Amino acid sequence: MAETKYDVLGIGNAIFDVLVQTDEGFLARHGMTKGGMALIDEARAAAIYDDMGPATEMSGGSAANTIVGLAGFGARTAFIGKVKDDQIGRLYSHDIKAANVSFATAPANGGPATGCSYILVTPDGERTMNTWLGAAQDLTPDDIDAAEVAASSIVYLEGYLWDPKNAKEAFLKASHIAHEAGRQVALTLSDAFCVDRYRGEFLDLMRSRTVDLIFANEAELQSLYQTSDFDTALAALRQDVALGVVTRSEKGCVVATRDNVIAVPAFPVGKLVDTTGAGDLFAAGFLFGLVRGAGYENAGKLGALAAAEVIQHIGARPQASLKQLAKQHGLPV
Amino acid sequence: MAETKYDVLGIGNAIFDVLVQTDEGFLARHGMTKGGMALIDEARAAAIYDDMGPATEMSGGSAANTIVGLAGFGARTAFIGKVKDDQIGRLYSHDIKAANVSFATAPANGGPATGCSYILVTPDGERTMNTWLGAAQDLTPDDIDAAEVAASSIVYLEGYLWDPKNAKEAFLKASHIAHEAGRQVALTLSDAFCVDRYRGEFLDLMRSRTVDLIFANEAELQSLYQTSDFDTALAALRQDVALGVVTRSEKGCVVATRDNVIAVPAFPVGKLVDTTGAGDLFAAGFLFGLVRGAGYENAGKLGALAAAEVIQHIGARPQASLKQLAKQHGLPV
Repeated sequence: MAETKYDVLGIGNAIFDVLVQTDEGFLARHGMTKGGMALIDEARAAAIYDDMGPATEMSGGSAANTIVGLAGFGARTAFIGKVKDDQIGRLYSHDIKAANVSFATAPANGGPATGCSYILVTPDGERTMNTWLGAAQDLTPDDIDAAEVAASSIVYLEGYLWDPKNAKEAFLKASHIAHEAGRQVALTLSDAFCVDRYRGEFLDLMRSRTVDLIFANEAELQSLYQTSDFDTALAALRQDVALGVVTRSEKGCVVATRDNVIAVPAFPVGKLVDTTGAGDLFAAGFLFGLVRGAGYENAGKLGALAAAEVIQHIGARPQASLKQLAKQHGLPV
Repeated sequence: MAETKYDVLGIGNAIFDVLVQTDEGFLARHGMTKGGMALIDEARAAAIYDDMGPATEMSGGSAANTIVGLAGFGARTAFIGKVKDDQIGRLYSHDIKAANVSFATAPANGGPATGCSYILVTPDGERTMNTWLGAAQDLTPDDIDAAEVAASSIVYLEGYLWDPKNAKEAFLKASHIAHEAGRQVALTLSDAFCVDRYRGEFLDLMRSRTVDLIFANEAELQSLYQTSDFDTALAALRQDVALGVVTRSEKGCVVATRDNVIAVPAFPVGKLVDTTGAGDLFAAGFLFGLVRGAGYENAGKLGALAAAEVIQHIGARPQASLKQLAKQHGLPV
């Protein structure tokens, strides 16, 4: 197999996060489903934003957060995602490149502005996301650089890519190129409502071996198999994919293959501030362990460590050096 | 005297903050003076930003931070400052209005983009600011709404207004209107280097009674009177202005009039994260105490409380309710 240039290349919606700490009443007033990611149009974005308190802004996007986390551990990374060439798009591009991620996707010159997610963080630390996709709508198969994909050990894709109309084709193109080059393809199921929108297609991706590794949380897994019984859903997952990693919040995670299931505990958290990015950063740590050949248990611990870091502050990008944190806790880096 | 509509109206440079935690080496590499505010041009802004790590963005600007803090205590407030009608300007306008501040300054339709400050926060919590004024350059006397100024108990101005070329005239117009209406005018000296640029003019403002209240930190006060001796500088200040409030970091503050000097201790701080906004929020608390008639000692304590809140997280805008905090600590609100 050819040498790799990247450990992980991620493809996802490039989304700028507008975060605010608020009360439960805000969610009720705007009819939001707590903990979910809702797609919104411009009119609803304006209505929500007009009613939001003063915000903090930060680059985000699920797969992008994961890739930035991987870079923070010291992995070689790249990201493909679409911003517009506007002020927010330039902030976004700066941030991902400044995190040592290769980012060469051409920004859109016309069309909608760079996408934004209006994220409400309630006092219990839960986040409720309202995403206007903006320029992320315009990611197409032409944005997939075949050589870059073929030179990456793992291609990491987010389920949210099923929402913009052409990104699905980009996703399938990338998966095909990766497999042709003998690489692995990982998918996060993203969100229980996203799974509900695309259940059949996600199951097809797994059963057709378009993806080799699935990340999911409990709600997403249960939505995928339409069961409230975790063990039933996990058994089904083990039939459908070579490697499944399921996060269970404070209960830690399980790493499931056809032959085995390993449980890894969560990492202790001082104060839960904002769960935004918890799953994304878990995936970062796990994938880092995987590409370093650290074994599933260590991979799970690295995931738990990164998730614990990101939920103790506002925003989905790490504030501490994940590499240093892993060293401090005796984990392989 | 006519009824007031606002407790405090602030006039300042409307600046969007781009904050990053970095090491001392970054400051050295770019020849920055730690703890200062340097004015930069677009080329230098690009050079600094290109080298900066992933950032967090938040609305800022010295007087604006103070006004938002005042609103957080429950004061009636307004702000005058110039943004451009661009993406960042719209984020800025949202944030200040969402903080319950009246903000009616027309945004610029042409000219430079909304101003930004590139703020480097070192591990000791100190912040070093590099400000590109952008649209703040275009604040003119026409932006001063005479009726609004005349209807405010206190007009609060930042020394930084001496940097953009027309803002000085806006400042003097506002002071004149305020005094005609029997109101008070407060000025923060902003920064020791700013004082060095405009020492003679600032002293004239004080001695001509164009301002009635001065906020300064030790470095600014010592720069103003060109002495390293605090007591000498304080004695001079007491001759030049009716009320002087000098902050001394962990040593608290002194409130000085011609007749008296009161020392108020600092508020205990768990973990110093980022000093950005410390002086601005001190001024917020102090002015709140003043307009509520709480006495200088309580005003000093309210200032210390607000400063302590803002330095325990990234960014110059409060994250907690200052009103609640004051209540919890038995201070008048």
